Amino acid sequence: MKPVKVGICGLGTVGGGTFNVLTRNAQEIARRAGRSIEIKAIASRRHNPACDTSAYTLQKDVIALARDPEIDIIVELIGGYEVAKELVMTAIENGKHVVTANKALIAVHGNEIFAAAAKKNVVVAFEASVAGGIPIIKAIREGLAANRINWLAGIINGTGNFIMTEMREKGRAFADVLVEAQALGYAEADPTFDVEGIDAAHKLTILASIAYGIPLQFSKAYTEGISKVTPDDVQYAEELGYRIKHLGISRHTDKGIELRVHPTLIPKSSLLASVNGVMNAVMVSGDAVGQTLYYGPGAGAEPTASAVVSDLIDVARMLDATAESRVPPLAFQSSELSETPVLSVEDTVSGYYLRLQAVERPGVLAHVTRILGEKGINIEAIVQKETKEAQVPVIMLTQRVAERMMNEAIREIEALPDILGEVIRIRVDHLAD
Amino acid sequence: MKPVKVGICGLGTVGGGTFNVLTRNAQEIARRAGRSIEIKAIASRRHNPACDTSAYTLQKDVIALARDPEIDIIVELIGGYEVAKELVMTAIENGKHVVTANKALIAVHGNEIFAAAAKKNVVVAFEASVAGGIPIIKAIREGLAANRINWLAGIINGTGNFIMTEMREKGRAFADVLVEAQALGYAEADPTFDVEGIDAAHKLTILASIAYGIPLQFSKAYTEGISKVTPDDVQYAEELGYRIKHLGISRHTDKGIELRVHPTLIPKSSLLASVNGVMNAVMVSGDAVGQTLYYGPGAGAEPTASAVVSDLIDVARMLDATAESRVPPLAFQSSELSETPVLSVEDTVSGYYLRLQAVERPGVLAHVTRILGEKGINIEAIVQKETKEAQVPVIMLTQRVAERMMNEAIREIEALPDILGEVIRIRVDHLAD
Repeated sequence: MKPVKVGICGLGTVGGGTFNVLTRNAQEIARRAGRSIEIKAIASRRHNPACDTSAYTLQKDVIALARDPEIDIIVELIGGYEVAKELVMTAIENGKHVVTANKALIAVHGNEIFAAAAKKNVVVAFEASVAGGIPIIKAIREGLAANRINWLAGIINGTGNFIMTEMREKGRAFADVLVEAQALGYAEADPTFDVEGIDAAHKLTILASIAYGIPLQFSKAYTEGISKVTPDDVQYAEELGYRIKHLGISRHTDKGIELRVHPTLIPKSSLLASVNGVMNAVMVSGDAVGQTLYYGPGAGAEPTASAVVSDLIDVARMLDATAESRVPPLAFQSSELSETPVLSVEDTVSGYYLRLQAVERPGVLAHVTRILGEKGINIEAIVQKETKEAQVPVIMLTQRVAERMMNEAIREIEALPDILGEVIRIRVDHLAD
Repeated sequence: MKPVKVGICGLGTVGGGTFNVLTRNAQEIARRAGRSIEIKAIASRRHNPACDTSAYTLQKDVIALARDPEIDIIVELIGGYEVAKELVMTAIENGKHVVTANKALIAVHGNEIFAAAAKKNVVVAFEASVAGGIPIIKAIREGLAANRINWLAGIINGTGNFIMTEMREKGRAFADVLVEAQALGYAEADPTFDVEGIDAAHKLTILASIAYGIPLQFSKAYTEGISKVTPDDVQYAEELGYRIKHLGISRHTDKGIELRVHPTLIPKSSLLASVNGVMNAVMVSGDAVGQTLYYGPGAGAEPTASAVVSDLIDVARMLDATAESRVPPLAFQSSELSETPVLSVEDTVSGYYLRLQAVERPGVLAHVTRILGEKGINIEAIVQKETKEAQVPVIMLTQRVAERMMNEAIREIEALPDILGEVIRIRVDHLAD
């Protein structure tokens, strides 16, 4: 078969990795795909010293590639929203397939992009947009296609997991580790996207759509960062048999779909609790299969390129296939997407870790437990830390309860005269069905 | 689109699970596949009390289903070799696609079956044949298609992993745990296939072919069981920072491909070391992606059915597709399979754990270390256990060396007058690149 011609747009970290993998493994790739995948053109503002692109003249205008009649597939690796969207939409209009690693673009503009692609009978593939080299989109969309997915929970931001791992292993404070993560190149100069959970929410939005067959609804995702987690919380969680991870969690409940990113206590015995450093992992629970887990590097030049190039092979194989034989972008046929609502965080259900500062005076705990009891919140464990101060930290673990009830309880507890400052609340998930 | 019609052959554990998943999730499956998947006929010698098959007349003759012109896909879940092979070959001859969970059939007769399927332009799908519900075949074949696979290592027999987990957690002996595993239904009355590594070697053979693009060569797989592992070895390994797992390992080396199943010491910190009980997991190392891991239930009615039905959805989608757009069964185009040889175990390279019984006399260790040194074997750790007996157990960990050299060294060590009995040898793998 004749070669497939690819235009690489963006030659940064992932673009460079993609160029190198396509070049180095060209023979292996052709042996698999049944045709070779050739780089026809590259558009990039600057050279990447990690790539030998001397055989190419780098083009400045990415949009021109999307109009080049000799290109079959556009690889969008420029990131961001505006230009990336224009590039992808222009490629689609010109009948080209698209492979992208851009989670923000897909999470925010995916519905519009997929609709345009369907009209033009082209594929938009985005395996690299979630969890880097882990083929998690393929696993959920195809490998677990027999299942109703009950829930999924993932460590899908390497920066955040690096920080949480360092905090636990070395008892360090968040701000301190963040500075190191920035020095190591794991975190951006502006770390908001990573540590406040926005990046993870983009990825979770994509995973949830594929798992449940709902349109992409990034704006409904709840995000809470890890910047307020203290070394004390990490330590107390350990003592109670838990580990704090920054998780994206999406659960299919009777009332709707939960879509939330926040620090979470999970049992130490869970495999997810053993995922350390910058590594990613996603646990998926299906009604037939039970629990499965997918682990690997969630970022980096070649891990992400692995997903980009694997998508290219898929697209190359199906270049002239009918729409019916292609896997739909959101796993379900576009006419069959569900209207199940995404729940507000107040309507989600979770266990809770609470930490409060109480004046050491008889009866304080009785007040607190009475308030929780009135809201129907059952306490699983309660630990009063010893201290020489007049105020003592009290740690509680509760059973699962609607967040709305917990918010009410916390408001009442904070109003107690013997409770000082805010009640610290971290959600708990046992990752059970 | 019109429904796809399926014939289920075999209504045992997996057949029953497949029936139930197809029935229960019929709507979800149609929403994904774009067409419904209908059970046209079932062939089974007996009813399965876990299934309500009252709408069907169970047929006795599986081969008749393979000839039924109304059936598009045959689901082979009868297991074993002879009848299963006849069923699959007859289905192919009659232009039907096949989905099977039969690892023995694929590992031993796969080359012949795939050749026949290629001639008739039909698909033979076998995701369920390895690691039950974990979509590991799809992950390697498609999700990591951009990579040259360096190696893979897996816990791919739940019975063996259950036994090794119990031995470690409770200090129990192999024979004792085996009896319990049989009572729990995890192990067969004749446990040979599981505990001697034959079942794992079937699965490893399949994974290696997909990873490296080589024909299936089960007869060249080296298998060693876990029946000789003692609680002492498990304990000593722990003390040295290792855990013993029954692994299938396949490595691509300059000389050829290693294909071996044996008890293996792996670092406790490896995620694979935390895979307990009957769960399965496969770690895959690719040149671009680095290390990824896939975890989940490796057996059982619905986990295995999850893989069978996901295959059915794939096949249903591609029912009328051209051969070019289909993923080749062994990941690489059949004309592109490689002749890289499978190495004999003597030519494989590994670290070793050695346990020997030495008479407590000066100079014994010096003799042993001299022999190892002469064979170019470097010692990483050496532990002499304290005892009140006149003979002491000595534990050694060596660096990586060709098995041939280790065999020579062991023969010489066993010939020393102060060494009693056999030298116990267990391979060590750091799961590093």
